[in-house]
Amino acid sequence: MISANPLFHGVVPPVATPLTERYEVDFPSLTRNLENMIAAGMHGLFMLGSTGEVAFHDAATRQAILEHAVKVVNGRLPIFAGVIDPTTDRVIAHAKAAKSIGVDAIVVTSPFYARTSQGEIADHFRYVREAVDLPLIAYDIPVCVQYKLARPTTVALAREGTIAGVKDSSGDDGNFRFVLMDCADIAGFFMMTGSEILVDTALAMGAHGVVPGLANVDPHGYVRLWNAAQAGDWATARREQERLCRLFEMVFVASGRTSAGSAGVGAFKTAMRRLGIFATNRMCRPQQDLNADEAAQIDAILKTAGLLG
Amino acid sequence: MISANPLFHGVVPPVATPLTERYEVDFPSLTRNLENMIAAGMHGLFMLGSTGEVAFHDAATRQAILEHAVKVVNGRLPIFAGVIDPTTDRVIAHAKAAKSIGVDAIVVTSPFYARTSQGEIADHFRYVREAVDLPLIAYDIPVCVQYKLARPTTVALAREGTIAGVKDSSGDDGNFRFVLMDCADIAGFFMMTGSEILVDTALAMGAHGVVPGLANVDPHGYVRLWNAAQAGDWATARREQERLCRLFEMVFVASGRTSAGSAGVGAFKTAMRRLGIFATNRMCRPQQDLNADEAAQIDAILKTAGLLG
Amino acid sequence: MISANPLFHGVVPPVATPLTERYEVDFPSLTRNLENMIAAGMHGLFMLGSTGEVAFHDAATRQAILEHAVKVVNGRLPIFAGVIDPTTDRVIAHAKAAKSIGVDAIVVTSPFYARTSQGEIADHFRYVREAVDLPLIAYDIPVCVQYKLARPTTVALAREGTIAGVKDSSGDDGNFRFVLMDCADIAGFFMMTGSEILVDTALAMGAHGVVPGLANVDPHGYVRLWNAAQAGDWATARREQERLCRLFEMVFVASGRTSAGSAGVGAFKTAMRRLGIFATNRMCRPQQDLNADEAAQIDAILKTAGLLG
Amino acid sequence: MISANPLFHGVVPPVATPLTERYEVDFPSLTRNLENMIAAGMHGLFMLGSTGEVAFHDAATRQAILEHAVKVVNGRLPIFAGVIDPTTDRVIAHAKAAKSIGVDAIVVTSPFYARTSQGEIADHFRYVREAVDLPLIAYDIPVCVQYKLARPTTVALAREGTIAGVKDSSGDDGNFRFVLMDCADIAGFFMMTGSEILVDTALAMGAHGVVPGLANVDPHGYVRLWNAAQAGDWATARREQERLCRLFEMVFVASGRTSAGSAGVGAFKTAMRRLGIFATNRMCRPQQDLNADEAAQIDAILKTAGLLG
Repeated sequence: MISANPLFHGVVPPVATPLTERYEVDFPSLTRNLENMIAAGMHGLFMLGSTGEVAFHDAATRQAILEHAVKVVNGRLPIFAGVIDPTTDRVIAHAKAAKSIGVDAIVVTSPFYARTSQGEIADHFRYVREAVDLPLIAYDIPVCVQYKLARPTTVALAREGTIAGVKDSSGDDGNFRFVLMDCADIAGFFMMTGSEILVDTALAMGAHGVVPGLANVDPHGYVRLWNAAQAGDWATARREQERLCRLFEMVFVASGRTSAGSAGVGAFKTAMRRLGIFATNRMCRPQQDLNADEAAQIDAILKTAGLLG
Repeated sequence: MISANPLFHGVVPPVATPLTERYEVDFPSLTRNLENMIAAGMHGLFMLGSTGEVAFHDAATRQAILEHAVKVVNGRLPIFAGVIDPTTDRVIAHAKAAKSIGVDAIVVTSPFYARTSQGEIADHFRYVREAVDLPLIAYDIPVCVQYKLARPTTVALAREGTIAGVKDSSGDDGNFRFVLMDCADIAGFFMMTGSEILVDTALAMGAHGVVPGLANVDPHGYVRLWNAAQAGDWATARREQERLCRLFEMVFVASGRTSAGSAGVGAFKTAMRRLGIFATNRMCRPQQDLNADEAAQIDAILKTAGLLG
Repeated sequence: MISANPLFHGVVPPVATPLTERYEVDFPSLTRNLENMIAAGMHGLFMLGSTGEVAFHDAATRQAILEHAVKVVNGRLPIFAGVIDPTTDRVIAHAKAAKSIGVDAIVVTSPFYARTSQGEIADHFRYVREAVDLPLIAYDIPVCVQYKLARPTTVALAREGTIAGVKDSSGDDGNFRFVLMDCADIAGFFMMTGSEILVDTALAMGAHGVVPGLANVDPHGYVRLWNAAQAGDWATARREQERLCRLFEMVFVASGRTSAGSAGVGAFKTAMRRLGIFATNRMCRPQQDLNADEAAQIDAILKTAGLLG
Repeated sequence: MISANPLFHGVVPPVATPLTERYEVDFPSLTRNLENMIAAGMHGLFMLGSTGEVAFHDAATRQAILEHAVKVVNGRLPIFAGVIDPTTDRVIAHAKAAKSIGVDAIVVTSPFYARTSQGEIADHFRYVREAVDLPLIAYDIPVCVQYKLARPTTVALAREGTIAGVKDSSGDDGNFRFVLMDCADIAGFFMMTGSEILVDTALAMGAHGVVPGLANVDPHGYVRLWNAAQAGDWATARREQERLCRLFEMVFVASGRTSAGSAGVGAFKTAMRRLGIFATNRMCRPQQDLNADEAAQIDAILKTAGLLG
């Protein structure tokens, strides 16, 4: 089901960033998370994505996180680095730093805050690619940047070699499928879905990889799902996916009280604290942490999913 | 029509940032713009707003722009500094730099890229205010940040003293009016509209100030409008406003070809080049500059408005 | 401030439709409402608008309402009839019925449910105008139909004589102003705002009329506002407008519990019941009626506004 | 992969409604279309959906279409009737007529034009169900009605027996999956996707049926896809789906010139004219017909898909 020889493939989780109670990066917890992921059989690691709260970290913190990850991972897996900021030249600055630290690919969104056209968005990716010689992955996340990468934009950037792949968090699976079909003949080009709950179907369409935030909580589940799909065992893939869907419902626990952003990553962090990976469930300011009542509901979900005794 | 003793008031244009052909800040042109504004009778200057392309400038460039403005203005007018970035602690870093440079107030948007709730947005403003002892102006610009400042949020922040005023670019004049009424008893609190074309009506509702990007092109027009409104001469205010509306149509010249962002600020820069204030009409990357054909259409608009012989 | 000789002008309230407890039109209450409006000095009456719950009434009920209104009003005021349904030929059928009943103008929205382009929207108005020889008023209400009437569409329809006027409930007062300016030379063409809370400012821009649902509750207030504006007494207009803004806050009473639709018209009906105009506050199905607790809050608002002793 | 014993299942196309050049229903063409569908092996027929241009037809025309379909089909397949209009009691009137004509199920959207809450939407379905004793299918089509059926609303209506199934044109496949999982234990309850291009994946998730407008053009393709999915032959299903995706691209031919509505159904009608099923490609007013140049592009697409020699 997979295009020959994609540049990258498999389960590439967006790694959550643990904080201390005092809002500093908790490097021992980060190490635990990375080792837990590697042990579970991830195929790559995506540092500083939305799940990694990239927009909350300044340049120095971002570099410290990447340096730590590169050191811990030590070549065992490819590392993608989110180099995410509103505009082109600021993205290039992050990208250069990431390259010098030694990551394997960079992940770039469309500009945000600024209001741009599809032509300007395409130029944005071109300018970044020209400035930094690393595989560039387009991150399509309209819920954060307000703009959808239009199919002609994506296909043109793929065909000219500006982008090596796409990480699609747009929720528009019809467009995802058309881009997959349009780019099927481009050697090495890859498409990854950012969904947690439509992974089996994305793989059935031919997606080359998956980037599920929930893999911070249950990396083994996504590996089983990936392996079943590779084997063409779609019944097993669906069963595993449905179990993961129920686990994913943790993100709705606090969504009435706080924002979707806090409720989602906050749930992952709360679960990871319960599982002994993170020391706290602290969120970057001004996001709100999940409270004790919400944590108890998440415990129940972990039990149902078989992750807690 | 004006509340007694607002902290700030009047015409406070968002100052456009000139670039050289090589994408560097063109300080001589910036000086010309600032002196042109001061000579025209502005009541304050807003550096590093959306019109100033703030999101495109890194911290060092922002500081250089603010230092230049503080030096040129030299106390002749209050300076507001946009300290705009996705999240709280990054905003605080910009705000501390701005304070040390000597600006008079800071202008802060809701978080962006991050998805937050009204409670988290309120906390964002509180954290910034606690960290930096300067008057804080809330910048309500949903077209850039995706979130509208809800009326209860704004009123609570005003009443507790977190925010000193609002710069409203939301286009929701009904909400603007309700907030004006709700906060009319708060000493010193002020509301400014970001509109170019509904200034007379905002002033008629009781707005304390106006922040029109078009004042970079025609500062005298907005001063005349302001003065007429202060005198209660609404017929003159309307006449001046309608002339400025026709001038504002320059922002539609390139809007079919490129983005609303480029077409708008790009038109201002193109007009200012024609008027001898800016040396180029260069836009920050990846935005597109207006071309010669578009510049000719803008010349015609300037002539109709009486700004070119 | 008003264009010479508009076809229609003044305060033209969208008349609310009273129901019995059994969901039938309550004609005695409707008579009371119409007489109350006429006595207060309205300049026209808009039957079967959104406030009149037009979308809930079938053809026979609509005709009964129009026949009743024509009979009660008996030529004392012009009557506008909303002929609102998803698509062209169905609108034409309503329009022909309305014409045969004897209304003075018809009010038509863009198509809805169907997804159309600006070109198709323009043709929609042209087809209706060709089929029914009555002044046609374009009703711009994107919150109900999903489409904004674009400025070029409106201006083209006005200039070719397809539409005689606009009733603008879009909330885009900048666009309203541009259309006013663009069409100022078209004899008889008129623009009316559908806002309750930005009436003084719309009149200051040159609007020829106002269509406030709240005039069902306080018609005298809008007449005072209109008269002050005609006299150029903008300070009085603003004071009256601000009182009406506070009265308008009744629409927020139930907006957390039910929909904006129910909460708004439901509040008007609840107030009119308290004022003895309507016998019930019944809403068309599936909308929810306001409850006793909400009615008590609305009583308090009526008292504050001076409408209840 | 299918729940035991759903009330309805399989390929249930939304039947396009042919018109003469004079905008009247072309019954001979409709007969050809129905016979073509039945011969191809459809499992049911959905008359008067969005593809059937339901919103453009008045009550008499709708009844004539249903009567014709019931007569032609003569019990060979179940017939679903769209009973679609803005509000509850008007929907009930259509539903009673449809029942008396002898259809097997009715398809109902959320209210539109009216602004309603989830509670009012739920009551809308309940009122219709109480009034008309036929299986009721909820039609989730936010692009037309502006409201998404929230997961708790859908699940509550399913569990209490108000709705027998869902036809989902929302594009939110994550929500579709959760509702499928939540309702898996409700005997007879069924979920159908309205997508043309994500049919294999919807079936892989457990969808019980598909309602693709494109089946008017290529019913055999969707039957092959359905049969492959039933056999668990997902590789064949994907291959057929990808061929149908390329065929579906006909809807983009005119989408730059006219609306998505015209461009979509207009493309189907244009293809059906070329295939000898329809006599014209006429669209209901004010929609625009596809022109000769667009028809030529559609011919090329039909050839590529193997439907034209």
